[in-house]
Amino acid sequence: MTLGALYVGNRTFTVEPRPPVPPGPGEVRIDVAYTGICGTDLHVRHGTMDHRVAVPAVIGHEMAGRVAEVGAGVTDWQVGDAVTVMPLDWCGECPACRAGHQHICHRLTFVGVDSPGSMQGSWTVPAELLVGLPEGLSLRHGALIEPAAVAVHDVRRSRLAAGEHAVVIGAGPVGLLIACVARSVGAQVALVELDPHRRAVAAGLGFTVLDPAATDPAEFVGGWTGMAGAAVVFEVSGSAGGVRTATGLLAVRGRLVVVGIHPTPREVDLHRVFWRELEIVGARVYQRDDFTEAVRLLAAGAVPTEELISEVVPLRHVTEAFDALERGGVVKVLIDCGGDA
Amino acid sequence: MTLGALYVGNRTFTVEPRPPVPPGPGEVRIDVAYTGICGTDLHVRHGTMDHRVAVPAVIGHEMAGRVAEVGAGVTDWQVGDAVTVMPLDWCGECPACRAGHQHICHRLTFVGVDSPGSMQGSWTVPAELLVGLPEGLSLRHGALIEPAAVAVHDVRRSRLAAGEHAVVIGAGPVGLLIACVARSVGAQVALVELDPHRRAVAAGLGFTVLDPAATDPAEFVGGWTGMAGAAVVFEVSGSAGGVRTATGLLAVRGRLVVVGIHPTPREVDLHRVFWRELEIVGARVYQRDDFTEAVRLLAAGAVPTEELISEVVPLRHVTEAFDALERGGVVKVLIDCGGDA
Repeated sequence: MTLGALYVGNRTFTVEPRPPVPPGPGEVRIDVAYTGICGTDLHVRHGTMDHRVAVPAVIGHEMAGRVAEVGAGVTDWQVGDAVTVMPLDWCGECPACRAGHQHICHRLTFVGVDSPGSMQGSWTVPAELLVGLPEGLSLRHGALIEPAAVAVHDVRRSRLAAGEHAVVIGAGPVGLLIACVARSVGAQVALVELDPHRRAVAAGLGFTVLDPAATDPAEFVGGWTGMAGAAVVFEVSGSAGGVRTATGLLAVRGRLVVVGIHPTPREVDLHRVFWRELEIVGARVYQRDDFTEAVRLLAAGAVPTEELISEVVPLRHVTEAFDALERGGVVKVLIDCGGDA
Repeated sequence: MTLGALYVGNRTFTVEPRPPVPPGPGEVRIDVAYTGICGTDLHVRHGTMDHRVAVPAVIGHEMAGRVAEVGAGVTDWQVGDAVTVMPLDWCGECPACRAGHQHICHRLTFVGVDSPGSMQGSWTVPAELLVGLPEGLSLRHGALIEPAAVAVHDVRRSRLAAGEHAVVIGAGPVGLLIACVARSVGAQVALVELDPHRRAVAAGLGFTVLDPAATDPAEFVGGWTGMAGAAVVFEVSGSAGGVRTATGLLAVRGRLVVVGIHPTPREVDLHRVFWRELEIVGARVYQRDDFTEAVRLLAAGAVPTEELISEVVPLRHVTEAFDALERGGVVKVLIDCGGDA
């Protein structure tokens, strides 16, 4: 019997013993070591995703663990393998799937939101979702593969190249990971962030960080790029101001990657999009190649994983973990699900 | 002595005799046969570009004619050659030029707006701006090469492929040319247009045309594409409503090409850009390859040039030509500059 954190609605989690679910054909049971808390999980707690989450529900999808049991017909995985999960389940039949864009399936199931997640000691999932972790990568760090894959996908969508200038607007966990991935491809990177704590973390990772209340980002980027403008801007803040800043920073043929969630339409300077032949590019979740690349980057030490993990909290204190994230002043909080033997 | 139409400000043109300007070194003098009136020329007449136009000014840049005289050092052109002009003059030194995007030079001179244009019988320009016309293409039709090159550029920026579905929002001259070029690459094409006359012209060219006041474009596109959505939407209307419609029509990974001029920021559904991984792509003027391709398409009859020319008006009636365009009910109006010998 292992523990699980159950979201029961009304901003509340309960922690309860849960019997392991034996893996069916094609499934694998995982002893979950760590689960990170994502912005999406915070939205779940705030009730804004209650239309998708069937309470009581175990949520969570940023995880690492070891294979504990394999179901019939599973030949690619063995007990003890270190793994993470790519939490997407697509239909394979809709126009997006048929066009090869399964990660944006019209009927996509996001595992850990639309179906049970990993904030529990034992988790049973389809084997085809597994991604192997090399033995040199700790399971603590493996729990960051999923958000790192988001960042890899965002950078890939931007077509950022070595030597180009990239600006990241918003230095939360995703923004920092994007900055790290962008640096790993050889780009010059600067971040824009209003929050002093987040600025301090970004500066501690060696990045140039602007406070837009003190420094005009357009003026900075002009000087930084010899008046060319930035090749790429990642809009991670999800704010109207972030969008306004972003278009003003871009070079001719520059790319603005829409990473943040904009709940309402935003005013966009389409004249500048026309005048400079800008591109605005949406980027959502990831594809398997992005996971593979995230594993490679973290195993190679290209992402300062340890610096991004602010706290590791036992599963029974799941509520405190969410509270810490909501208070701010932390980057990534992991829940220790008990499986890091 | 030939005639020239001079914009003198205050919505007014005068027609005056003008002595031919002998070509200097590297220049060519052209006997202008026809000059089309562009939307930009209408803006000039309305005074909205007075900050760029030094009155009295000969404007105009959609033209065809024959080489009448070549300056010193010009070896590529001979008297009698049928030509049009790519009316862009770039600095070669700014960041955009150095990056190979000369057509979006930070200090671009648009010939016929920022410098003298082709609404005159004799026009002297740098030889490097010339684009040759094949003898099988009439000079009437040659005057449409420049706007056709805009359309070729827009379609190229969209990466539209054979078999894909494309929607053009706005069926004015540029929208119709885009539709023709899109059809020539093998795409399925539909147009959306509020004006009944423009709808009739588009239907007469064999296109599917929607009246958005009568048919919901999103519903139409859903049925047309098996619920996939359109691969490409060209926003040519320059309207807030056009932008709103456009994002709603696109398939996963669809491309919205911003062709129209949006004088103020527009509300854009960035959540859908994220959710479907859309791209919004600016497209401005053209590059030399676009001119070459436009010449090839018009010479091959892939664009129904004659159907797009509503009227040909003698230069001395230039004011009436502008009035006709402003009244509407016409597509392209050409000014006969007298050089079609």
